[in-house]
Amino acid sequence: MSDGNPETINRQWLLKRRPHGMVSEDDFEYRETPLPEPDLAAGEILVRNLYLGFDPAMRGWMTDARSYIPPVPLGEPMRAVAVAEVIASENPAYPTGSLVQGLYGWQDYAVARPDDPVPPMALPEGTPPTMPLSILGMTSLTAYFGLLDVGQPQAGETVLVSGAAGATGSVVVQIAKIKGCRVVGIAGGEEKCQWVRDSCGADAVIDYHSENVTARLGELCPDGINVFFDNVGGEILEAGIEHIADFGRIVLCGQIAAYNDAEPRPGPHNMMYLVARRVRMQGFIVMDYLDRMDEAMHDLMTWMGEGRLAWREDIQEGFENIPATLLRLYDGRNQGKQLLKLAEPSTPG
Amino acid sequence: MSDGNPETINRQWLLKRRPHGMVSEDDFEYRETPLPEPDLAAGEILVRNLYLGFDPAMRGWMTDARSYIPPVPLGEPMRAVAVAEVIASENPAYPTGSLVQGLYGWQDYAVARPDDPVPPMALPEGTPPTMPLSILGMTSLTAYFGLLDVGQPQAGETVLVSGAAGATGSVVVQIAKIKGCRVVGIAGGEEKCQWVRDSCGADAVIDYHSENVTARLGELCPDGINVFFDNVGGEILEAGIEHIADFGRIVLCGQIAAYNDAEPRPGPHNMMYLVARRVRMQGFIVMDYLDRMDEAMHDLMTWMGEGRLAWREDIQEGFENIPATLLRLYDGRNQGKQLLKLAEPSTPG
Repeated sequence: MSDGNPETINRQWLLKRRPHGMVSEDDFEYRETPLPEPDLAAGEILVRNLYLGFDPAMRGWMTDARSYIPPVPLGEPMRAVAVAEVIASENPAYPTGSLVQGLYGWQDYAVARPDDPVPPMALPEGTPPTMPLSILGMTSLTAYFGLLDVGQPQAGETVLVSGAAGATGSVVVQIAKIKGCRVVGIAGGEEKCQWVRDSCGADAVIDYHSENVTARLGELCPDGINVFFDNVGGEILEAGIEHIADFGRIVLCGQIAAYNDAEPRPGPHNMMYLVARRVRMQGFIVMDYLDRMDEAMHDLMTWMGEGRLAWREDIQEGFENIPATLLRLYDGRNQGKQLLKLAEPSTPG
Repeated sequence: MSDGNPETINRQWLLKRRPHGMVSEDDFEYRETPLPEPDLAAGEILVRNLYLGFDPAMRGWMTDARSYIPPVPLGEPMRAVAVAEVIASENPAYPTGSLVQGLYGWQDYAVARPDDPVPPMALPEGTPPTMPLSILGMTSLTAYFGLLDVGQPQAGETVLVSGAAGATGSVVVQIAKIKGCRVVGIAGGEEKCQWVRDSCGADAVIDYHSENVTARLGELCPDGINVFFDNVGGEILEAGIEHIADFGRIVLCGQIAAYNDAEPRPGPHNMMYLVARRVRMQGFIVMDYLDRMDEAMHDLMTWMGEGRLAWREDIQEGFENIPATLLRLYDGRNQGKQLLKLAEPSTPG
């Protein structure tokens, strides 16, 4: 593997095949191609990726099923969010040397156009280059709209968050606390549970590695769960339904427990509770809230400025480690938002 | 078994034990008791049941689980909706000889009080005594609020209704048609399917006895299902989720497929579609809409007056047949709203 001579070579990890069951490094193929044409059309920019972001939902993009976004084509670079530096520009909105965010994929370089499905997002000068991928990234926006718009928590209500140590879940915990709720988190392992409790401010945390989640929920939520923000699905979703309160809301953000299943697993056996308890269970996709991003960013930056948001970044390095870094999400090894660093900005950010 | 001498005896079917799995006649016990005290307190009325109504949800009332209504106590008459005649009254709102509706249970006589959890509902003079239990009954109100308030169908959308030949489902089909939707029903057996299509006006009907529901839904709803009103649960719910459209709504009204399960059965394996397609799945209980009954009754009576609502009543007879009549709901033998006639009004209704 080349070191990625920025003058001549574009390293890429292509999606080689659609995974069956757990995604593996063998599902990807390494390739070196020439640097994309520097002969840009009007409006285009050439970017160099600095940081890649990883999210559990990427497993879904690899599958050839109808979804909210088309699957990654086989033989193309794996789709991924990245913060990149503009190194050539035919677009005054994105000057050379500035930072942008977009779906630039698992490669060193990409050409971006204003009419891309996700247009390049210019980052304000001085933005730390990891922040748009972590605390000011899509995962925080997901937390914001999922909790507040779909979950509709009221002060004093009990909010349950699964995947509470994750990039989305940890922000849900903290926004729910800011809104005056009592918050119970579910996470895997003592280290993560401690962080959710001590740094994110959850009132209680259940360690699903060592505790019986259903039993603990019964103890911790004797009056039921008003809002359940679920990132996990499977048995964790079933446990939450078991203790959902009358008129409870279940925010379906994702089902990481099931993303890598080769065969579909049974759903919750206790769906009848949704009727008797008049529960609203609702899925959502953050991309549907694009027109309200400003509102969320304003609140998130205000809370950051007030020191009310904790977050962690798990930064791996090395182009060769990109596929392995994705796998860290599915065995829970990541400690905080999973990133991978490819390069430093050529000019101080 | 006595013929129920109206002067001296109150026949009753008591709940003897909580059923495990399918409810059976042996779960009930026959008893004769003296007529309730005619010595009424102020506000009380003594009623004689004329017609009993049967609903699949009654299975849930027999189970000792937290729900929207307390379980029927063992040794007490089985809870049931009835239309009854007032035969003694200490309440001017309910004069002797008038008809009332209430939860008077599986017995000939009951004493009702204005402060009962469900107070007696006076029926306008001339009301046909079965109508408040069928087309103007709780099942139609369930259809009305579930479809319109929870499902929020828009003209031109595709609405799927399971249990479409049932008392609730058949009214859902017809209200959806009145609101300008395209309606697909699911029912069991050719006779029921024909009635749903020809009399209720469904655009298409799937016979789950003889057809592959998932495959047929794919053919009939190529653009997906916008609103799924589900009375059934289990595999039918899973099939509907498989073909739910983006931003679809699933109205969870009941899960008759599961009411008599001894052990919980797995839920839908395709819950992930709820996320990717931003689906809202919501349970409801018609009793939460008590303050809006007038609005629903106005619309239902208007549509009836315009000849736009078809319905069927399946009227059994004989006090001894009460438990067996309940079972008709769970094997699908009932043809229309299940009722049982106990007596004629003593004065023309």
